[in-house]
Amino acid sequence: MMRSVNGVKSAYSNNLTRRSFVKTVAAAAMASISTDMTLAARSLTSLADKSLPPASRPNIVFILADDLGYGSLNCYGADKKHIRTPHIDRIADAGMRFTDAYAPASICTPTRYSFITGQYTWRTHLKSGVVNPLDPLLPDPDRMTIARWLQERGYNTAMIGKWHLGYGNKTPVDLTARLSPGPLDLGFDYHFGVPQNHGDMWGVYVENDRVYGLRSDRLQPYSRTFYGTKYAGLDAPQRENKKVMEDLTNKSIEWLKQQNRDKPFFLYYAAVAVHHPITPSDHMRGMSDAGPYGDFIQDLDMSVGRLIETLEYMNLMDNTIIIFAGDNGGDIPENDPERPENQAIAHGLNINGRLRGDKHTIWEGGTRIPFMVSWPGKVKPATVSNDLVSVMDIFATVCEITDGKLPAPKDIAPDSFSFLSSLLQSETKQGRQSIVMSDVRGRLALRKGHWKYIDNTTGQGEQVGRPQLYDLAEDPSETVNLYDSHPEIAKRLADELDRIKQVQASR
Amino acid sequence: MMRSVNGVKSAYSNNLTRRSFVKTVAAAAMASISTDMTLAARSLTSLADKSLPPASRPNIVFILADDLGYGSLNCYGADKKHIRTPHIDRIADAGMRFTDAYAPASICTPTRYSFITGQYTWRTHLKSGVVNPLDPLLPDPDRMTIARWLQERGYNTAMIGKWHLGYGNKTPVDLTARLSPGPLDLGFDYHFGVPQNHGDMWGVYVENDRVYGLRSDRLQPYSRTFYGTKYAGLDAPQRENKKVMEDLTNKSIEWLKQQNRDKPFFLYYAAVAVHHPITPSDHMRGMSDAGPYGDFIQDLDMSVGRLIETLEYMNLMDNTIIIFAGDNGGDIPENDPERPENQAIAHGLNINGRLRGDKHTIWEGGTRIPFMVSWPGKVKPATVSNDLVSVMDIFATVCEITDGKLPAPKDIAPDSFSFLSSLLQSETKQGRQSIVMSDVRGRLALRKGHWKYIDNTTGQGEQVGRPQLYDLAEDPSETVNLYDSHPEIAKRLADELDRIKQVQASR
Repeated sequence: MMRSVNGVKSAYSNNLTRRSFVKTVAAAAMASISTDMTLAARSLTSLADKSLPPASRPNIVFILADDLGYGSLNCYGADKKHIRTPHIDRIADAGMRFTDAYAPASICTPTRYSFITGQYTWRTHLKSGVVNPLDPLLPDPDRMTIARWLQERGYNTAMIGKWHLGYGNKTPVDLTARLSPGPLDLGFDYHFGVPQNHGDMWGVYVENDRVYGLRSDRLQPYSRTFYGTKYAGLDAPQRENKKVMEDLTNKSIEWLKQQNRDKPFFLYYAAVAVHHPITPSDHMRGMSDAGPYGDFIQDLDMSVGRLIETLEYMNLMDNTIIIFAGDNGGDIPENDPERPENQAIAHGLNINGRLRGDKHTIWEGGTRIPFMVSWPGKVKPATVSNDLVSVMDIFATVCEITDGKLPAPKDIAPDSFSFLSSLLQSETKQGRQSIVMSDVRGRLALRKGHWKYIDNTTGQGEQVGRPQLYDLAEDPSETVNLYDSHPEIAKRLADELDRIKQVQASR
Repeated sequence: MMRSVNGVKSAYSNNLTRRSFVKTVAAAAMASISTDMTLAARSLTSLADKSLPPASRPNIVFILADDLGYGSLNCYGADKKHIRTPHIDRIADAGMRFTDAYAPASICTPTRYSFITGQYTWRTHLKSGVVNPLDPLLPDPDRMTIARWLQERGYNTAMIGKWHLGYGNKTPVDLTARLSPGPLDLGFDYHFGVPQNHGDMWGVYVENDRVYGLRSDRLQPYSRTFYGTKYAGLDAPQRENKKVMEDLTNKSIEWLKQQNRDKPFFLYYAAVAVHHPITPSDHMRGMSDAGPYGDFIQDLDMSVGRLIETLEYMNLMDNTIIIFAGDNGGDIPENDPERPENQAIAHGLNINGRLRGDKHTIWEGGTRIPFMVSWPGKVKPATVSNDLVSVMDIFATVCEITDGKLPAPKDIAPDSFSFLSSLLQSETKQGRQSIVMSDVRGRLALRKGHWKYIDNTTGQGEQVGRPQLYDLAEDPSETVNLYDSHPEIAKRLADELDRIKQVQASR
């Protein structure tokens, strides 16, 4: 029997996709080992050479903010005279803050896809834009996800908040039917989600694989969303915009309170703040000095405070990794000074710091994000790292933490690099050397060292301008295109970008 | 006219009591200066030699916990495996934590009286015990209070929480009538109070000088309190025990949200936790590892977190002094293992640390308290002081902060010593050298240096045992009575205690 277990382990180490893994486990089960997948997974991984014992596996809480700019936290330079973010700042105080962290794209869906799968989104059929409200599930349920990875290692897993990766397998999805495949099929035990954002036409929450509280399949479309489309009018409790952050936070606290110290857990909490519509809570209204947008940032901070506090009161902090990140840059609407984002700018808040551009764009303001990690006893408090990291890298990092080594990239987390060596300040850094970022139209750029090359071809293959090259060390605001003066560097980066596009896995 | 103002100032500096001060101001008003007391007070104090300009006067938030033991916070040694107090600990992280702070008594009323007046309670008619639920107001409205002092210097002032100093001027107080004199007559602009504690027979809140929400003067006594007496049955909204902490905290936040950065404020927030009845919120129930008593401590911590967070979000922290203190030692009921306090002890929590005794007693466990002060830019973060300080000393400290000097002790804060030199780590320490503490029966003890002398005479003059002497440096748990072996030290302390009792002011 021991041989069978080892057989499974070794097959597992060869990075099978989930279905083939299940088959292998099933075969092993016929050879009379435990059929409990969780137990099986635990046995497996406890045999891995460098893996930590199951009891020492850290809980993981990943907090993803929505459209939070690089300059919108005090710990990233926002002046306290405009906004205050004490709770989020405490994550930086307690751990490591990254100055050069990126979202793999300047829009919502690709970042979330890449976090879940460790793969660039442009390797899928989605070459530009986002998953629309009635689109099917984007991730292939056959692909290993970070949630499945942890679930198979004995973690309780939950995804609470903005999902934005679609549900089901047809377009348009039937909102009143079972929303499957969905998060539960990607490795989450529990899901309480906002399908797209708190201004979407669904108007409701999803719990697990159903609209939350669905009373009947009647649809009575009504009124219009912030985006001008009619609400679906589902016969279910409707979300209240100003309370969505509180609802999501309370659901997360409720879930955390069901955890204990014997079984590790993974919470993926995706805030709807500070994506438009800008809907601060009545409690926070007017407490910032940057208008409703500043208030909404402070709402985000308060929610983070509530989550951390819950971990503290339950004495779970010492064994919990908290990762906080933005999903892309802050959004700055054009030509409308009345919009809260522009009011905040008028108040003096530099939403994206000194970076050029904003959400949707290929500029640093679109993809450079706040990113910090606390892990008591492992990550030194109040440290700052300039290493290049991505939201997409969390998956590989988690693999290294749970197993002491990485799965081969062919099938699992193909574009994800572990930044564990950065976190632990190891002498040998093993993280990524370059990163590809994409914009709303699917244009790609490559950052390597202090250089950034922008390949002005859209996801549909349309050339929309000359290529560009910036020296981020000298010119962090991307003002001087050095493409003509440094052709050899441009060529080197263009070649690397081509190579990454052509391979199946960049790791 | 300038001469008149100076005349007022000089009279004021001579430490008039409030009524004579009012008379003087009235006289000055007749001499055609402003009749607005606030403006008058501001003009006065801005002329004081060393006073800070009004705009730089710090806000003051005093948080008084109820029956919180010396060992019941993580920053005072409570093990995180039993309870977690992250928010209160942050006050210590941000400021100065005192190891040798005392309540002037081991019971509630005297500490609160001494805080308000800067005078030992045993100088009043109350020689032992506490103010009972239907007793009149204990402080003499003619005596200057810390609230009046600040009110006259332009502060907005509020007292929210457990009052326990009585209302009105007769026994029994008419619960349905105007509750005057009361906090409003002692210098508080706003009061939202629990008369005695959240288990008292009033069963209601008091707002300003009336029972909150009183609908009629009908009384329908019902059921019984935790203490066995019938609830008064006032025709008003009844308190819900498990929600009192939340109510008081929300009222305080509501009040703080009405403040601005142009006018300083003073909030005296007196929690009902962790006095019995032990009634943790449903939210916190079971989150500690010390049973309901541990949960209630964590409720206290959460309330403190909410208050601090509000100051942070409003950007008021940088100009706010936060003082956190206990009102006496933790209460440990005898002979009842089922009581939550004893359950917590069974879980391993050392409620009063290694100190002997508890609330009501003359031992260190009765009077030594958690005490910490944060003041950004003034008090160095994460400092620890062994200086002798008392809750009673806050008044004189505040006087020194607002005026740059102390009023003469004859009439104002006669037993209060400023610990500003401790806070600022000045080379010349100017705080107190000794402190008198009393127990529930009015027995007095004197601590001076590392010696503690207990004069075993009750407030009624009854000798209840031989005098005792302890060396707290060698014997912090007061196990060996050195009275016989060190008669000269005992004599010296006894003489000093006698002297303090005989003078009108020990400062």
